[in-house]
Amino acid sequence: MAHYVLVHGAWHTGTELGPTAALIRAEGHQVYTPTIRGNRPGDSKTTGLAEAIESIVEYLDENNAKDVILVGHSYGGMVITGVADRGAHRLRRLVYWNAFVPNNGESLLDMGAPGSVDIMEAFAAERNDGSIELPFPFWREAMINDADIETAKRTYNMLNPHPMKTFGDKISLSQNPAEMAIAKSYINCTEDTAMPHSHPWHPRLSEKLGLFRLIQVPGSHELCFSNPVKLAQAIMDAGRD
Amino acid sequence: MAHYVLVHGAWHTGTELGPTAALIRAEGHQVYTPTIRGNRPGDSKTTGLAEAIESIVEYLDENNAKDVILVGHSYGGMVITGVADRGAHRLRRLVYWNAFVPNNGESLLDMGAPGSVDIMEAFAAERNDGSIELPFPFWREAMINDADIETAKRTYNMLNPHPMKTFGDKISLSQNPAEMAIAKSYINCTEDTAMPHSHPWHPRLSEKLGLFRLIQVPGSHELCFSNPVKLAQAIMDAGRD
Amino acid sequence: MAHYVLVHGAWHTGTELGPTAALIRAEGHQVYTPTIRGNRPGDSKTTGLAEAIESIVEYLDENNAKDVILVGHSYGGMVITGVADRGAHRLRRLVYWNAFVPNNGESLLDMGAPGSVDIMEAFAAERNDGSIELPFPFWREAMINDADIETAKRTYNMLNPHPMKTFGDKISLSQNPAEMAIAKSYINCTEDTAMPHSHPWHPRLSEKLGLFRLIQVPGSHELCFSNPVKLAQAIMDAGRD
Repeated sequence: MAHYVLVHGAWHTGTELGPTAALIRAEGHQVYTPTIRGNRPGDSKTTGLAEAIESIVEYLDENNAKDVILVGHSYGGMVITGVADRGAHRLRRLVYWNAFVPNNGESLLDMGAPGSVDIMEAFAAERNDGSIELPFPFWREAMINDADIETAKRTYNMLNPHPMKTFGDKISLSQNPAEMAIAKSYINCTEDTAMPHSHPWHPRLSEKLGLFRLIQVPGSHELCFSNPVKLAQAIMDAGRD
Repeated sequence: MAHYVLVHGAWHTGTELGPTAALIRAEGHQVYTPTIRGNRPGDSKTTGLAEAIESIVEYLDENNAKDVILVGHSYGGMVITGVADRGAHRLRRLVYWNAFVPNNGESLLDMGAPGSVDIMEAFAAERNDGSIELPFPFWREAMINDADIETAKRTYNMLNPHPMKTFGDKISLSQNPAEMAIAKSYINCTEDTAMPHSHPWHPRLSEKLGLFRLIQVPGSHELCFSNPVKLAQAIMDAGRD
Repeated sequence: MAHYVLVHGAWHTGTELGPTAALIRAEGHQVYTPTIRGNRPGDSKTTGLAEAIESIVEYLDENNAKDVILVGHSYGGMVITGVADRGAHRLRRLVYWNAFVPNNGESLLDMGAPGSVDIMEAFAAERNDGSIELPFPFWREAMINDADIETAKRTYNMLNPHPMKTFGDKISLSQNPAEMAIAKSYINCTEDTAMPHSHPWHPRLSEKLGLFRLIQVPGSHELCFSNPVKLAQAIMDAGRD
């Protein structure tokens, strides 16, 4: 039995990873799906990256977690990298799933595609409360391109406004991921165009891990909604020893 | 029920898309497979790009087509882009299938791989009537690499000499595809080496669409022959809302 | 019935290709799995590339092989290229499977990723007898990423120390692969990270073949262990006319 902690991406909470978690549990593993500070109902939308990371460190401490396979999706890659830097003693392996891989001093926006900072800031300006929402056409075409329109609409309604500060804050690490001794995997969904393929997740960001295990699976950025069965299998293939 | 118009590529006619169309119809949709001027029996082999585009504009007008999902394969991407610029009121979505995506003033040959102009002109010189044919080894190895030899030979015999002028003519557009308001999808067959992978269809050409939906499917440039079932599904995944 | 000769990669012998060969034979073909000089029990670990190539030329001569589909895996690509230059009269097609494709005067190390020469020399320095072994973590994460840990361990124990000289020797060819008249295919396992994807097997090395047939299949560098069924099918799809 392995111990999985699944850390969601921006605009999500842990709840949306429920179906995936259930499938991994059915194979005999323990699975936790915490929600990062800033994405919980009532959380301040001025939450920054350090607080976000701290909330998952606290979660692992409170549960006295050991031997954890820590999985991070998208923005969750920022979070698990920060957690690994502070709580390596609780971890067995890091699994990045179409996730950002920061070196010390980098922000999520530093790793975006050319022009993405302007786009994100324009989205954020529409709300003017520190949070950012995605317009539906971008969600439907670029993030959940492998689902039908009903699934795209239903899941869009589950999203929560994301604290923009977590995207701009530069992470503080004592060592870069490539230097971390822990085992690492990268799951790449091959039709994920949340990051344009001319400026892709893999290998551009994955190779910042140094030695890592690559798992690829067909699907969009939101495989948790479009195909939890394939995602659960990919997580287990990435997470095993 | 959706309304599909499938626009073939160079050397083909609409007839070869028959098996794919039948599979889409079986799911309850309307499907048309016109043949572009220049590829119809008896057409002049000095046909140019503007005439080719005009023939599909006329086809939509004659059928008083509405709400069309307009699919273009390879060279057909030149044609559907021109049609979209002139007849957007008849269209619901553009679907490019391993297709050229021209900006205003570009020709198909402008988007070819380095050296491809020379190769195409050498092929054309062998016929000396304005048309171009492909040598069988290129067809078999680079265009229908996923089929057996019998399928490769049988389908080679269906091809018609293609008017070279349609490759060299520069398209005239009032706006580039990225600026067009219509929804867009790109189907990428992942083993398509008609365009070398160092100079690929996707993302090099697909990203000229601006926001678009990516659908990928295993197969060669000629999936209409090697696997119409997978192609039909990809077209429906690309064409739905 | 076709005649396949499967040439293994570094650290391997022909024996490890037994399960794949059996699956191809079950489809009615003849399959041979020689072991390259330098990898046979008792072979000198100072064996160089020319001797390695010569051992397969001799093998084909001794068996009076004709009409051979010659398949090379990884380092085996160096060997089959050299064999093709000397014994084209015995061959029907070359099939490279995540393999090196050398031009005249190139060594395997010339085609490695940036930094790989230093890494390989560091591995070799640990043995100091002319041979090189891979550390288990690299094998498990970068070369057999699609297998479970038991398979990774079991197959690691089958490996033999590889003569480093075969990696550094420059090949001597009368013509480069692109100029060879013989038919050529390239099998690319899409999760193969033995070569980092920022510096990939395909299309970087495959396109040195000139006109070639691409076959892609999901899997790691060691598909012979993780999925011989898929590998056997890929070899037959690559090897047929």
